[in-house]
Amino acid sequence: MTADEQNMSSRDRIIAAGAVMLGEDAGARLSVRAVAERAGVSTGSLRHHFPTQRALQDAVLARVYDEVVSDDRIHDRTVPARERLIDCLRLVLTPTVGEQARQAWLTVFRTFLVPEQTDEIRAAYLGMEREGQRRVEYWLSVLVEEGALADGDNTRRARFLCTVLNGLSVERAFPAEESILRSEAETLHTAVDCVLSSPA
Amino acid sequence: MTADEQNMSSRDRIIAAGAVMLGEDAGARLSVRAVAERAGVSTGSLRHHFPTQRALQDAVLARVYDEVVSDDRIHDRTVPARERLIDCLRLVLTPTVGEQARQAWLTVFRTFLVPEQTDEIRAAYLGMEREGQRRVEYWLSVLVEEGALADGDNTRRARFLCTVLNGLSVERAFPAEESILRSEAETLHTAVDCVLSSPA
Repeated sequence: MTADEQNMSSRDRIIAAGAVMLGEDAGARLSVRAVAERAGVSTGSLRHHFPTQRALQDAVLARVYDEVVSDDRIHDRTVPARERLIDCLRLVLTPTVGEQARQAWLTVFRTFLVPEQTDEIRAAYLGMEREGQRRVEYWLSVLVEEGALADGDNTRRARFLCTVLNGLSVERAFPAEESILRSEAETLHTAVDCVLSSPA
Repeated sequence: MTADEQNMSSRDRIIAAGAVMLGEDAGARLSVRAVAERAGVSTGSLRHHFPTQRALQDAVLARVYDEVVSDDRIHDRTVPARERLIDCLRLVLTPTVGEQARQAWLTVFRTFLVPEQTDEIRAAYLGMEREGQRRVEYWLSVLVEEGALADGDNTRRARFLCTVLNGLSVERAFPAEESILRSEAETLHTAVDCVLSSPA
């Protein structure tokens, strides 16, 4: 344990340990015991801060996304709202291109597409999904606040955009005609225009 | 070979053999030799009718889709265009629910998400994609013809809808909150409204 780590609260140490574990293996399931061990805290202490696996997973994912993805872009009003939202959505797609996309999907498949979906596996997957959804909802809420998007059901809008992102992400992993990046841009624009012009 | 098969032209026999092979294994790649053998024709004869693997794959998939999916629905003007298009898109999703969706995606992954993507594998996958895309474009063209959809870039529109379908199809295979079918319906409606109100 480094001096820095000793100065962190046990809650922070737990989150940092989980983030490191996800960094080593994006498909890792964060078991209470493994994370507690890595963080140098007791499982009792971990359970105190994070009573459920879901709470642990969500906190770790929130930290990972906050560090990896910078979405300050959404606040830059010198750029049209449409382009800002597209840029932010692209952040979600960015890590997954070509061979990397294939590997990333294979990891996700091996981890979550298993015959026996335990509660732990379900919770881990749903935590990831929820965090992605929360992130898109946040971007939409910024646009609503500045008046670039009509007040409305952002949960539903975000779900729609996340489904489009899932589709694009899968398509990046499979064979494609030369024009995939062009068609991807077109689809992103279509989806964003659709949301920006959507009624409440 | 049955009497029926003897009466079929060699072209039809080849297509029927390929369709049977896909029926046995949805992820099967249709090699010229295997299909020719199954159809009881020479590879030379197969090559005569289908000079490329792509031509063979496309012809077989067109037959499979025509037999499995009835999209007469798109012509039923007693139903609003929006509902008809959604029903047709649902046909594409239908075979993939719950455990079946998981199995279907696993087959697709094992077949196409391989480290060495040969030309044959690429051609087989792109053939499937192209056929799905062609089908959606056809539905859109029917709606344009009757005036329910503005004349416009149906290729782009279809690509957008296919991406949404890919996203929904993947989401069906992974763990989901209880409400997946509701959110799926909402997303389909959003996507279809988006296309139906799209300018040229």
